[in-house]
Amino acid sequence: MSQTDLVSLRRRLHRKPEVAWTEFYTTASIVDELDRIGVDALFVGPDALDGEKRMAVPDDETLAAALERAREAGANPDTLAKLEGGYTGAVAVLEKGEGPTVALRVDIDGLPQRESSDDAHLPAREGFRSEHEGQMHACGHDAHATIGLGVLERIKESEFEGTFKVLFQPAEEVVGGGRAMAESGHLDDVDYLLAIHVGLDHPTGEIVAGIDGFLAVTQFRATFHGHPGHAGAAPEEGKNAVQAMAAAVQNLYGISRHSDGETRVNTGRVGGGTASNIIPEEAFIHGEVRGKTSDLRDYMWTRAQEVLEGAATMHGCDLELTIEGEAPSATSDEALVDIVYDLSENVDGVTSRMRRDDLGGSEDATYLMQYVQERGGLAAYVGVGTSHPGGHHTATFDVEEATLGIGVETVSGAILDIAATRP
Amino acid sequence: MSQTDLVSLRRRLHRKPEVAWTEFYTTASIVDELDRIGVDALFVGPDALDGEKRMAVPDDETLAAALERAREAGANPDTLAKLEGGYTGAVAVLEKGEGPTVALRVDIDGLPQRESSDDAHLPAREGFRSEHEGQMHACGHDAHATIGLGVLERIKESEFEGTFKVLFQPAEEVVGGGRAMAESGHLDDVDYLLAIHVGLDHPTGEIVAGIDGFLAVTQFRATFHGHPGHAGAAPEEGKNAVQAMAAAVQNLYGISRHSDGETRVNTGRVGGGTASNIIPEEAFIHGEVRGKTSDLRDYMWTRAQEVLEGAATMHGCDLELTIEGEAPSATSDEALVDIVYDLSENVDGVTSRMRRDDLGGSEDATYLMQYVQERGGLAAYVGVGTSHPGGHHTATFDVEEATLGIGVETVSGAILDIAATRP
Amino acid sequence: MSQTDLVSLRRRLHRKPEVAWTEFYTTASIVDELDRIGVDALFVGPDALDGEKRMAVPDDETLAAALERAREAGANPDTLAKLEGGYTGAVAVLEKGEGPTVALRVDIDGLPQRESSDDAHLPAREGFRSEHEGQMHACGHDAHATIGLGVLERIKESEFEGTFKVLFQPAEEVVGGGRAMAESGHLDDVDYLLAIHVGLDHPTGEIVAGIDGFLAVTQFRATFHGHPGHAGAAPEEGKNAVQAMAAAVQNLYGISRHSDGETRVNTGRVGGGTASNIIPEEAFIHGEVRGKTSDLRDYMWTRAQEVLEGAATMHGCDLELTIEGEAPSATSDEALVDIVYDLSENVDGVTSRMRRDDLGGSEDATYLMQYVQERGGLAAYVGVGTSHPGGHHTATFDVEEATLGIGVETVSGAILDIAATRP
Amino acid sequence: MSQTDLVSLRRRLHRKPEVAWTEFYTTASIVDELDRIGVDALFVGPDALDGEKRMAVPDDETLAAALERAREAGANPDTLAKLEGGYTGAVAVLEKGEGPTVALRVDIDGLPQRESSDDAHLPAREGFRSEHEGQMHACGHDAHATIGLGVLERIKESEFEGTFKVLFQPAEEVVGGGRAMAESGHLDDVDYLLAIHVGLDHPTGEIVAGIDGFLAVTQFRATFHGHPGHAGAAPEEGKNAVQAMAAAVQNLYGISRHSDGETRVNTGRVGGGTASNIIPEEAFIHGEVRGKTSDLRDYMWTRAQEVLEGAATMHGCDLELTIEGEAPSATSDEALVDIVYDLSENVDGVTSRMRRDDLGGSEDATYLMQYVQERGGLAAYVGVGTSHPGGHHTATFDVEEATLGIGVETVSGAILDIAATRP
Repeated sequence: MSQTDLVSLRRRLHRKPEVAWTEFYTTASIVDELDRIGVDALFVGPDALDGEKRMAVPDDETLAAALERAREAGANPDTLAKLEGGYTGAVAVLEKGEGPTVALRVDIDGLPQRESSDDAHLPAREGFRSEHEGQMHACGHDAHATIGLGVLERIKESEFEGTFKVLFQPAEEVVGGGRAMAESGHLDDVDYLLAIHVGLDHPTGEIVAGIDGFLAVTQFRATFHGHPGHAGAAPEEGKNAVQAMAAAVQNLYGISRHSDGETRVNTGRVGGGTASNIIPEEAFIHGEVRGKTSDLRDYMWTRAQEVLEGAATMHGCDLELTIEGEAPSATSDEALVDIVYDLSENVDGVTSRMRRDDLGGSEDATYLMQYVQERGGLAAYVGVGTSHPGGHHTATFDVEEATLGIGVETVSGAILDIAATRP
Repeated sequence: MSQTDLVSLRRRLHRKPEVAWTEFYTTASIVDELDRIGVDALFVGPDALDGEKRMAVPDDETLAAALERAREAGANPDTLAKLEGGYTGAVAVLEKGEGPTVALRVDIDGLPQRESSDDAHLPAREGFRSEHEGQMHACGHDAHATIGLGVLERIKESEFEGTFKVLFQPAEEVVGGGRAMAESGHLDDVDYLLAIHVGLDHPTGEIVAGIDGFLAVTQFRATFHGHPGHAGAAPEEGKNAVQAMAAAVQNLYGISRHSDGETRVNTGRVGGGTASNIIPEEAFIHGEVRGKTSDLRDYMWTRAQEVLEGAATMHGCDLELTIEGEAPSATSDEALVDIVYDLSENVDGVTSRMRRDDLGGSEDATYLMQYVQERGGLAAYVGVGTSHPGGHHTATFDVEEATLGIGVETVSGAILDIAATRP
Repeated sequence: MSQTDLVSLRRRLHRKPEVAWTEFYTTASIVDELDRIGVDALFVGPDALDGEKRMAVPDDETLAAALERAREAGANPDTLAKLEGGYTGAVAVLEKGEGPTVALRVDIDGLPQRESSDDAHLPAREGFRSEHEGQMHACGHDAHATIGLGVLERIKESEFEGTFKVLFQPAEEVVGGGRAMAESGHLDDVDYLLAIHVGLDHPTGEIVAGIDGFLAVTQFRATFHGHPGHAGAAPEEGKNAVQAMAAAVQNLYGISRHSDGETRVNTGRVGGGTASNIIPEEAFIHGEVRGKTSDLRDYMWTRAQEVLEGAATMHGCDLELTIEGEAPSATSDEALVDIVYDLSENVDGVTSRMRRDDLGGSEDATYLMQYVQERGGLAAYVGVGTSHPGGHHTATFDVEEATLGIGVETVSGAILDIAATRP
Repeated sequence: MSQTDLVSLRRRLHRKPEVAWTEFYTTASIVDELDRIGVDALFVGPDALDGEKRMAVPDDETLAAALERAREAGANPDTLAKLEGGYTGAVAVLEKGEGPTVALRVDIDGLPQRESSDDAHLPAREGFRSEHEGQMHACGHDAHATIGLGVLERIKESEFEGTFKVLFQPAEEVVGGGRAMAESGHLDDVDYLLAIHVGLDHPTGEIVAGIDGFLAVTQFRATFHGHPGHAGAAPEEGKNAVQAMAAAVQNLYGISRHSDGETRVNTGRVGGGTASNIIPEEAFIHGEVRGKTSDLRDYMWTRAQEVLEGAATMHGCDLELTIEGEAPSATSDEALVDIVYDLSENVDGVTSRMRRDDLGGSEDATYLMQYVQERGGLAAYVGVGTSHPGGHHTATFDVEEATLGIGVETVSGAILDIAATRP
């Protein structure tokens, strides 16, 4: 694809951002492109991932409405039929003779964020602002999907020998899709895995050969089920779920720091009760714990469960606890970092290179990296700088489109070098 | 009005329950009846209350939608025009020569409660179930309004000498209307005030001459304004409003009991934050405190404010605190209790009498009682039993309609005796 | 005994206040008096109570030191030998022919309170201030013991027919002795029981015929056992007992009020940890719950245990929970109240009478009252006013000594009337 | 000093451990040795430090008792006279011609820890166990003082050219003495500063050339002053200091982690209240906050103060807050680390070397390091391994005495090289 094609494709995707597990139009568009390019094998929806391992899937009504929206927007009905029930995403495979199996993972979902309609915001000014009001590609996954397709086409046309896969992963923003794709079987024979991310406060032209410092994360939803009571006439009949929730919040933040490294805890969204004069029967915490390593996250998660159970016990409530999202920590392998770093020196448009940087957040590409590494393969997470006007996850985030070509060149170049040198 | 008329009127109101400050159809229907009966003076909407003293008024959009619904249901447009902006309620006056001024207060609002559609529920079986899905007359205020009109007609036709007023008060369920009506000016010359309530676990045929034990109440909304932050990358940037809220909840319930009598506290509805990975920027508590006396309620309210301020300070948040509803405590005057008790012995259908009983809840009729009592008048709150299948505020609450006639007879009889004896 | 004798005896006891279960000198002094008066049966120490039921007994070292102090003060060694191990108290019996069995219970222990040495304080001025620095008869139990002996002598000399017992009960201040005396067997045949208390904000000359409103109480000690850790180097190794304790405190006070009546909760003494840089391994709460009835106290106690267990779970601690004191609620029987009220009208020095008043605190005489009442007997708790300069349990509390004679007259008179009328 | 002399001296000090600001015998013993060795200037007590800057000084009674104990043990009365009031410590100076000023800081205080009397514990077995029951040299400061004297003697005898100072610092264990010594004036002309510590889990024979990772620390004491009340009769009269304390504890641990690095918080010792039936009037927290940098510690301390103030406000209490100890963070300068690392290779007994390691705790030598570094000097903190059977601050901690000679050789060697090369 030419730079013009890349830009056009990215803008098409940008107009139709779809949040976790509703990437119906997006997946169908990707499949259209793959059909145009021509691949040796194509796995869509339930064939692309382990459906049982999906986390944070929306309810049926939400899924059905999003599917209908995609249908009305003209998405291919045959593709949509395969995605029903929130089985989005795809895996494309090129078989190019003897050689290693190399994979590229890109994520494709949008965010529940309203996009700026200000003229200073390029998508608004140039007419490709989100058509899904309240949803937005505010983290560049439209660019990721585009780069994934660009790389696939470039590798197809290249001298690459071996097998090449592109994994179009849904539901990264809720750390809900990584595990389902990691355990889909498609990674079992992968020798080398790259994942990419644009931006991250690196300007256009800068490449970070290996990103690390992923915080392992567990997102959870705790619901306290108590019993109502009239706050004036019989308060003692209540089992106060809001008291349980408040006790839990107070003590979750109080989980001890750990001398082995960074940990995090947050009760990001809470609620409970119905009216000021009713002892609250139900309350919830939508929260998360993180750790610099998966062990540190596990420490936090074990302690969090003790706190939640203790809080329920305190107020005679039942605790319902579900994991809503999860990702381990991971580290980029030095051998791949070397290749990306060296190769990028000569890529057109690359003006600055870093060997490594820390993410400081979470990302479920780590599930795939870990899966490959545990089986003897190598993995790296590559940063492709883009000068974004607003921060990630804000209304004015945007991708400078020169990044698309730089990303395709850098990643496809690295894949050719990996296949050639088999580090 | 005959018993048939009373039943018919009550069912008409029952079909159109309207929650606090949206009693547009209800007020218009009452005004229609008052016009039919003929009164000497009629005050509607802003003329019936002190609009500035209304509490817990819904937002404009909600008010406008409810007004439109009443219009579509055929309510008198002239009346509706006066009620715009949530100025519901009415005051009707009969001038019948020299004598004391006696007033009856009835409340007219419904509840945000879905009504049972089960055939065992009489309104469902007989076809007068709520047409406003999710709203319901689940506390008998349809019967109160009906009895108020029935009493007015009876007094008009009687030998009563003096002035008689019926106060049709909106927004009792949110303790938001009592103060506005108490301070409307219509009570300034009132010598004797009665208020009534049906049910309260007393069966049809039972009269409670004086109800006491009202808990004074203050309902409040506390909002903590903090600052967001990324829970993984920069948690320290947050000023955590959910932590502030949780600390407040923990310590509000911990306000000390008082040796002078009953107190209550509840954080009945709480919420905060936006997503599991964002340090929550805002959180709220919709809560209440109560006391057996207004002093005890004030003690609780003073302490509650200390707790809320301390919680905000703890987490660097700003506190926004508004009173959403309020009612004092009150006691029925013995002289009026005597009259009601003695009179009711000979009322048809009355099979059981109690001198006094305790409510154990809150009720803003107390504002009116207190207003009259502070100016030298007497007041009593009369219970008119009705065998209700479900409890108050539940989907299967219903009023046995024989109660309507018993209520009219008892209350109008008492009013005649009051005017005659001027206790 | 003459008023002079009563005063002299009371001052002797006042000089040697002894806290719960260390009433060695006090018991020996009482036994001396009983020997002087002459009784038909005398039960001392282990024979006076059910030793297994004692609560809040100090450790052996404390007991031994107090016993030694009594020995050095000249207490009768034979009596002391019986009291060893903290078996204090005595029961004296007069057998005076056929008739009902009437009992009087008086308590005899002092408080851990330093007595004022100010000249304005009569015991200081007149030289009978406490010789046990840091301990004090600050609740009038010296007067109670004295009145008990005075009444016994008066009944012995009277026409009383039947059996009369005086129960000298230890350890009331820690609500630790009532149960042991109630279940000693000495109450099994008691038909009528009186207990007395001086003061309670009633002036000298006022009699309260029946005191009620005893709050049932359970006093407990909760210890959280966690694990230490270095607060800088390895905080995660700690299981933080102070966090568990704090969570418990926050939520104990938050136990819901009860619509059936008064409840109380207090964490009156807490502590934990060793140094600022060690994660605290151990923490304790010395607390209590109360209720207007024993049921309400039980509700509080059940909820308190849930809170304590939940708090331990939250922070991975083990909970050790012991009951340190306990007393039920009780009510004075109307028939006895009548007799005391009527009789007191003619007692010299009585200038004011009340039928009933509320204590608003706790008292383990209720164990004895309940024991008698459950077996068909009658019981009352009589207040004997005394104008006390300082409040109960303060350094300047004192008993106006005219009270001693009034108490003896009132109580012995009532006992004679009870035996005569057998209500 | 020979190895025998070093051992003998260390054992003498070991027998008389003295906690912070009571190092009377210890200081006097050090002065005796300095007199024996002969120094050019000697500053003792108030002349050795800035007395106003001392933190965590015990009360006068404790100081007087410890001074008396030292006197009875035969300490030089002239020296003791200078130390009165808790002005312990000393600074010794050698003037050896032109050259840089080099200083060595050693700390000299013991811990409030009972020493093991088990035969497996060498000091017990060989008869030099602590004679101050309940106090112990459980962190090797006896060895530090000894090495300091050994190095001084060695430098005196050497070719060293310049000025050499040894700072014998009291009260390190409470981080209370560092600041007073840093700001004494004795560091104003220092070009190079070394500080040492034995052990730290490094075996005998291992040298760590530069220790870093000191956590900046602030230790505080917060007292909540409320108001008492009878928990049964009038709980509302109380202003509950224990509730305030518990709210503070819950929220102190909940202070947000910081993305810039490690932080810590601990409420290591708490207490409050007097009896289970009194609303607690007073409660305290003896706690601390730490940070990897002084900025991070300041962040924690600012937040901690907000929490403490908010907790007091919540429960109507007054807050009294004092800083009890403090130390900044610090880093060892590379140039000195190089010298120590290189030099130690050839020291007899050194079998293992590390360039750097992290302490992970706090140490107020950082005050001195920072003071020198801010004025253009260089500083390093050197670890001298010793195989200690029990952990630091435990009853079985001990210093393997071969360490004494190794320490003297390494440190004096490094000082000679520093003076020679002036890095």
